[in-house]
Amino acid sequence: MTAVAEIICVGTELLLGDILNSNAQFLAQELAALGIAHYYQSVVGDNPERIQRVVRTACDRANLLIFTGGLGPTPDDLTHETLAACFGVPLVEHPEILEDITQKFARRGREMPANNCKQALLPQDAKVLTNTSGSAPGIIWQPRPDVTILTFPGVPAEMRLMWRDVAVPYLKQTGWVQKTVYSRLLRFWGISESALAEKVAPFFDLSNPTVAPYANLGEVKLRVSALAESEAAAQTMIAPIEQQLRAIGGLDCYGVDDDSLASVVGQLLQERKNTLAVAESCTGGGLGAMLTSISGSSSYFWGGVISYDNSVKMGLLGVSPEDLAKHGAVSREVAQQMAVGVRDRLKTTWGLSITGVAGPTGGNSEKPVGLVYIGLAGNGIVKSVEFRFGAERGRDWVRHLSACSALDQLRRELLLTKS
Amino acid sequence: MTAVAEIICVGTELLLGDILNSNAQFLAQELAALGIAHYYQSVVGDNPERIQRVVRTACDRANLLIFTGGLGPTPDDLTHETLAACFGVPLVEHPEILEDITQKFARRGREMPANNCKQALLPQDAKVLTNTSGSAPGIIWQPRPDVTILTFPGVPAEMRLMWRDVAVPYLKQTGWVQKTVYSRLLRFWGISESALAEKVAPFFDLSNPTVAPYANLGEVKLRVSALAESEAAAQTMIAPIEQQLRAIGGLDCYGVDDDSLASVVGQLLQERKNTLAVAESCTGGGLGAMLTSISGSSSYFWGGVISYDNSVKMGLLGVSPEDLAKHGAVSREVAQQMAVGVRDRLKTTWGLSITGVAGPTGGNSEKPVGLVYIGLAGNGIVKSVEFRFGAERGRDWVRHLSACSALDQLRRELLLTKS
Repeated sequence: MTAVAEIICVGTELLLGDILNSNAQFLAQELAALGIAHYYQSVVGDNPERIQRVVRTACDRANLLIFTGGLGPTPDDLTHETLAACFGVPLVEHPEILEDITQKFARRGREMPANNCKQALLPQDAKVLTNTSGSAPGIIWQPRPDVTILTFPGVPAEMRLMWRDVAVPYLKQTGWVQKTVYSRLLRFWGISESALAEKVAPFFDLSNPTVAPYANLGEVKLRVSALAESEAAAQTMIAPIEQQLRAIGGLDCYGVDDDSLASVVGQLLQERKNTLAVAESCTGGGLGAMLTSISGSSSYFWGGVISYDNSVKMGLLGVSPEDLAKHGAVSREVAQQMAVGVRDRLKTTWGLSITGVAGPTGGNSEKPVGLVYIGLAGNGIVKSVEFRFGAERGRDWVRHLSACSALDQLRRELLLTKS
Repeated sequence: MTAVAEIICVGTELLLGDILNSNAQFLAQELAALGIAHYYQSVVGDNPERIQRVVRTACDRANLLIFTGGLGPTPDDLTHETLAACFGVPLVEHPEILEDITQKFARRGREMPANNCKQALLPQDAKVLTNTSGSAPGIIWQPRPDVTILTFPGVPAEMRLMWRDVAVPYLKQTGWVQKTVYSRLLRFWGISESALAEKVAPFFDLSNPTVAPYANLGEVKLRVSALAESEAAAQTMIAPIEQQLRAIGGLDCYGVDDDSLASVVGQLLQERKNTLAVAESCTGGGLGAMLTSISGSSSYFWGGVISYDNSVKMGLLGVSPEDLAKHGAVSREVAQQMAVGVRDRLKTTWGLSITGVAGPTGGNSEKPVGLVYIGLAGNGIVKSVEFRFGAERGRDWVRHLSACSALDQLRRELLLTKS
């Protein structure tokens, strides 16, 4: 039987928003990697009637029901008894579970509270899904020929261990897992999601591999996913698609998978044995923070100046007071002088600068919020590029896009320079 | 009619586990705060048939359906057209939306791609739920007397703004909201969650207001929540509890609600008409970025030096080469000289510095990963404080705690100085 899974997370704390549903994301990733189809996720509170309703709906549209939560020792932990009721079977006590829980408490020098006894009660004929780290075991249970149920505790660390150590081997042994999905993420900067989608539209119709677009914080991504017998086979299917998408994307495609603009720029600098210094106004250090988020960045990033006040632009970077007065701090001229100034003072190959109106105040009709100049000096070039990020999405957005765009400008310049 | 909400998140990226469903948590918290009941959440992919199935199930058990996702410009964004099909009405083009999207693109100097046109198509009789920051609008629609539908884009920042600015006022005006939960968040730095929980344990037994602890990224929070007929009544219930908790927390309680260490430090500096400069090594600009995340910070924050390389510590900050050789870059001596150096060169009241081993490499038994010195100079004081954040949680964690701890040190010093 081909598996169609449904993830069902039980817990009133999810309905109150007290916790983020990271279990659903983990299980979704795992199911995707195992090539198990999965079309719906449900969240329901600790309420037997509503849990039953969710189980009935799920049985109509899936054959592998994966539960998290509701296995604890308190009276509102109801998953196993509700499942038993749902399929009309009694709960049966498992003395070996009781023994296991008692020993786990004993190892921490504590006595098992009476509450925990109920964790040894499982639906009749359900197999134990051993909890290797915590007290509550889960179950593997086929109450009907067309329904298999796996249950896990809600504690993420316990659930993940049980999933990997017990559930995945079970799913593989019993033939639920046949193929693997392998994905490659292509990362783009400097193009909008809709513009990229137009360029690569025909690829969205492919069925294996599939191509899907995502956008987040100014970045656009294309995920290429292949379903295949092995990872190697999937990679062989993905490679030609990736090549075509990269050719279409051109310079806008800056990296893959775990790459970031900062890591890619770092690699290009390292290959060229170049060094970098930054001068930041509206980002206030955010560009330096991105660059130094990469371990090992000290080999090419020497530091910089946060020239938030004009006195610092003049005093530490040598920006001309006349140009500041004439053109204003947010101008091409000042951006260029900041880049040259920081490069000369720190004696690096490149100087990269940012000056702009981050908002929400400080904008005017001539220089609106979101207007940013990126300055770049090095390799015989001094230039500046103007960006208009708009005022709508606020200060954090303008600052984030400014820092990323500065990295992107340097990246494009480095690609023109031989390594 | 009493509202019973259901949250429905649409997006194949959720089923693939590409993103964490933070929208569901946000909406759950908001519904809880508005006192709107909410018993189920559903996640479904970008598939019209399955979206229709989820809608039918939800209409049987809820009367307020809240959708996120599937409003984008690409062909797999199907929420509005599927809803129209579900209730048998046509899509209608809204010229004012088309105009709004065109203008949003124009303001960024770009032309609207043809793809975005579909975002102006809404189900007949649906009202526009304006998107103040992004392109895709949502809808407020009552397709049947017993069903009201709200839709939001999946981009969290856009969704949150639309929820607060448009949806909440609508829900209040139309009588969906009766009792209100009002919360006050007390923020602590410099105390662990368990230590604070021990100090305030008796408060956890209260039933209205309730007190609950949260911890995140080194910060500990206590949420005081009261259920009442009006916000004013809730505030009256919360005030005495807040007063007692603040008295217990003492100096560790740094702020409330939307305060951050950076905003609190900024306010203290402003009240004292003091100015600040920073010198950053392992944080690489992260401290400056935190300070300048506050709009208006230019009145007290003048800038700083990112002295990542030792040459910058000596050249731009005047750190002694002998002390660098003798004590190393990560030392009390260097931290103090960085703070003094940046204060003197930028001519500010205060100089604040950070030098440490962020890891994962670069540590040794004498100076392990996570060892950080914060330097502070100003008001006749020159001092440094040692922190050991440990290597376990990685580079980002050490850098984040370093920047926050630097702000906290300055905060405590400023509180000793008269304004």
